[in-house]
Amino acid sequence: MSLRKRLYRIIFYTDTKAGKLFDVLLLVAILVGVLVVMLDSVKEINDNYYTILHTVEWVITIIFSLEYILRILVHPRPSKYIFSFYGIIDFLAAIPTYISLFLAGTHYLAVIRALRLLRVFRILKLSQYLDAGSAIAIALKHSRRRISVFIYAVLLIVIVIGSLMYLIEGPEHGFTSIPRSIYWAIVTLTTVGYGDISPETSLGQFIASLIMILGYAIIAVPTGIVSAELVKANQQVKKQCPSCDEINHDEDAIFCKKCGGKL
Amino acid sequence: MSLRKRLYRIIFYTDTKAGKLFDVLLLVAILVGVLVVMLDSVKEINDNYYTILHTVEWVITIIFSLEYILRILVHPRPSKYIFSFYGIIDFLAAIPTYISLFLAGTHYLAVIRALRLLRVFRILKLSQYLDAGSAIAIALKHSRRRISVFIYAVLLIVIVIGSLMYLIEGPEHGFTSIPRSIYWAIVTLTTVGYGDISPETSLGQFIASLIMILGYAIIAVPTGIVSAELVKANQQVKKQCPSCDEINHDEDAIFCKKCGGKL
Amino acid sequence: MSLRKRLYRIIFYTDTKAGKLFDVLLLVAILVGVLVVMLDSVKEINDNYYTILHTVEWVITIIFSLEYILRILVHPRPSKYIFSFYGIIDFLAAIPTYISLFLAGTHYLAVIRALRLLRVFRILKLSQYLDAGSAIAIALKHSRRRISVFIYAVLLIVIVIGSLMYLIEGPEHGFTSIPRSIYWAIVTLTTVGYGDISPETSLGQFIASLIMILGYAIIAVPTGIVSAELVKANQQVKKQCPSCDEINHDEDAIFCKKCGGKL
Amino acid sequence: MSLRKRLYRIIFYTDTKAGKLFDVLLLVAILVGVLVVMLDSVKEINDNYYTILHTVEWVITIIFSLEYILRILVHPRPSKYIFSFYGIIDFLAAIPTYISLFLAGTHYLAVIRALRLLRVFRILKLSQYLDAGSAIAIALKHSRRRISVFIYAVLLIVIVIGSLMYLIEGPEHGFTSIPRSIYWAIVTLTTVGYGDISPETSLGQFIASLIMILGYAIIAVPTGIVSAELVKANQQVKKQCPSCDEINHDEDAIFCKKCGGKL
Repeated sequence: MSLRKRLYRIIFYTDTKAGKLFDVLLLVAILVGVLVVMLDSVKEINDNYYTILHTVEWVITIIFSLEYILRILVHPRPSKYIFSFYGIIDFLAAIPTYISLFLAGTHYLAVIRALRLLRVFRILKLSQYLDAGSAIAIALKHSRRRISVFIYAVLLIVIVIGSLMYLIEGPEHGFTSIPRSIYWAIVTLTTVGYGDISPETSLGQFIASLIMILGYAIIAVPTGIVSAELVKANQQVKKQCPSCDEINHDEDAIFCKKCGGKL
Repeated sequence: MSLRKRLYRIIFYTDTKAGKLFDVLLLVAILVGVLVVMLDSVKEINDNYYTILHTVEWVITIIFSLEYILRILVHPRPSKYIFSFYGIIDFLAAIPTYISLFLAGTHYLAVIRALRLLRVFRILKLSQYLDAGSAIAIALKHSRRRISVFIYAVLLIVIVIGSLMYLIEGPEHGFTSIPRSIYWAIVTLTTVGYGDISPETSLGQFIASLIMILGYAIIAVPTGIVSAELVKANQQVKKQCPSCDEINHDEDAIFCKKCGGKL
Repeated sequence: MSLRKRLYRIIFYTDTKAGKLFDVLLLVAILVGVLVVMLDSVKEINDNYYTILHTVEWVITIIFSLEYILRILVHPRPSKYIFSFYGIIDFLAAIPTYISLFLAGTHYLAVIRALRLLRVFRILKLSQYLDAGSAIAIALKHSRRRISVFIYAVLLIVIVIGSLMYLIEGPEHGFTSIPRSIYWAIVTLTTVGYGDISPETSLGQFIASLIMILGYAIIAVPTGIVSAELVKANQQVKKQCPSCDEINHDEDAIFCKKCGGKL
Repeated sequence: MSLRKRLYRIIFYTDTKAGKLFDVLLLVAILVGVLVVMLDSVKEINDNYYTILHTVEWVITIIFSLEYILRILVHPRPSKYIFSFYGIIDFLAAIPTYISLFLAGTHYLAVIRALRLLRVFRILKLSQYLDAGSAIAIALKHSRRRISVFIYAVLLIVIVIGSLMYLIEGPEHGFTSIPRSIYWAIVTLTTVGYGDISPETSLGQFIASLIMILGYAIIAVPTGIVSAELVKANQQVKKQCPSCDEINHDEDAIFCKKCGGKL
């Protein structure tokens, strides 16, 4: 096996000892990289440990850069990797630090490297968690149309209600424009309720009450959609009986529950 | 085919090339119309672009007016269109701008034209989204009685609790009247929690805690109702009876439950 | 039929014309009674319409008192009525106004008469709504143990977390005592989030974040409990086939879906 | 039976009269113990009743200490008890008061004795509540992987969104560091919404709106997971196989799915 092929296996797969070691070291580097960006933004820490944070940030960035180049070099079809989801994330994980040389502050964008942590399940061979994750992903994928329609309806509702509240409450109570009133309507309908803007007239409070109760009722919709999908997935057919064609067996069944034949 | 009939087909249907174009152009006009009303309400934008916003608003209004008149003229039964859901929305989409000539500020009501966007699914032939939407609508329709009873019960609860808190906290802590205390109770029970009014006495905070835990438990009710409906809907498979065309059969049915014929 | 028996039928049942009229008039009186108490608490209204509000309040109170006495007189077993749920509510609907003669402010308690509105479904013959209500009531009754255990667990969690936050944040950040910190924990865990008390130290905000994510996850529990109950209720057996004993038929089935026999 | 064995039965079991009495007295002591710690933290009460609170606290602590020693002495395998869940709780219930002699304030940690109340169901023979609790526990246990993956995904989302908002809003609007912005993102996504930090720029409010609607949609995920688990649990009927004692059969099973024997 050529060196390139061997490196490809180590870097992109986890089925070799070296590959596993590579991935775990990478995971540590990602965690340190995310932590450094976070701590760098805390004024007290930045003031006292500027040099060390900066050094670590650059070490991590150079590691990520080398790794990115290596990945491109060893991949059989580099362009496929570069434009894959992980390829883009890997690129974005290193580039902000370089840009920050020209444009101050942009290195905080490097926090996007947190998304590299999505690989953790694959790396640590947590296949049961991968299954759990994909079960959720499938349920969400099956629900995507219903949820899209739901969110579309919610958007129309908040546009209409937001404008109405702009007319009722007006700029003097914090509803300074329709977009800001729509922001308020979203804050209210989703039950977040910051309280940075809140209705002060009686009519405004009455309408706000209606929206809240509406929000209380319609939060049932996305929940119902996903619940129904997951219930369905749980009931999904697992095995078919060769004798009687009964298909509704449990995952752990050995004999058919209708005719008693072996599955 | 008469011109009127042809126009009817173009305006009300999307199965011709001209009809599709008409609808897409209309969709763009609606989006621009909604955006203009929103931007007009933002003070900084209004100050700087008053003339252009005003012009666009009037252009859109005239387009909508002409379209509305045209729809009435070409419809085989005009009164049916005028009093349909979309007929009323179409009317309300244009009229506020005219009223604003006499009554300043009312043109913001034109934002109701956002509801015209409900047509987007039909226009863009997103039939799968239409199906998703009607699945939700059916589940909500089936749940309407249960949700009504639930909201009625919630209203009685907030009336009693609101009055109680008015007695306990009193006007000096922001509970200035029973209606306002009821508003607070709704804000709390729905877990919105603005914090514009919040209990300050120990007894008030104790009762508020009870309400919150109650709200935490009863939010389960509407969610459960809709979930159960959607689970039920998912479990109904479209097996159709060859004799009587009844389609509402279970997955495991062998005989039609309406006519007894074999499926 | 004696007068007493006839009056009993009119007052306690709705199957006569006079009985229906009596109930509808009573419903109107209750609504007016609740509204008067509410409006009376609004300072501006109270200042201007004190006399009229007071008069109406007393008229309603006397109507309720006479009705209460009448109910006792005509009921075959008065004590059974007096100590029934509605008997107690009916008593509490009138008495606060009398007490307010000696103890100012207590007449606001008369708002408890709102609970008399619970009769609305029975009076207006909204039997489908009654069914919907009892379906919810049954689901909640079946879930009562699970929900009790859940709330008990939530209480233990908020006691422990509240005390912890009292030690971490302390009185200078609004966590003035353990009970108040527990109040904060409930406000946070239930996602109400007034913001009247909020953590200010880094450690406090870190722990608060944990609680919120915990709260986000455990809100699933009561919802899941009620959903599961309602799904189960929806799946409840409706009809049994006389030929093959298959029981899993839909409400509207006429023929057995397993053997094709008539149900 | 030796005294030690008899004491063991009384202290660790509830099937004797003395055992029941012991447990009920202990329950009262725990409740008093928790209450005393709570009241002690309320300044006004502490100022006026310092001596009595202190005395009760020490009496309770000594009772708990003696009980703990007794439990160790009578248990057949003391080390097993000491390192069990309840053993650790029992230890932690007494120790903070002793530590407070050297380190002021630590006695508030004694509130952890509230966890001893978890025994209440076993003591009061509320076996149906125990069943309800274990049904929830099983559903949560089955959901633990899905919920872990979900929380992991939520954490990555709040890290990325928090950093983005730090760049957009900046320290002048309260987003003083990335960790604090992440705290804000959690407060928002979980719909708690204190309002201690809230976006003030238009772009910030726009992104916050997206997060809220996202949060509104993804709260469906944990709820769906637990609902689906509980629906599944409800559908599993306890039909037991006479040959192999397997109990996990479906309601409609005729043959055992493990050994193929007739049910």
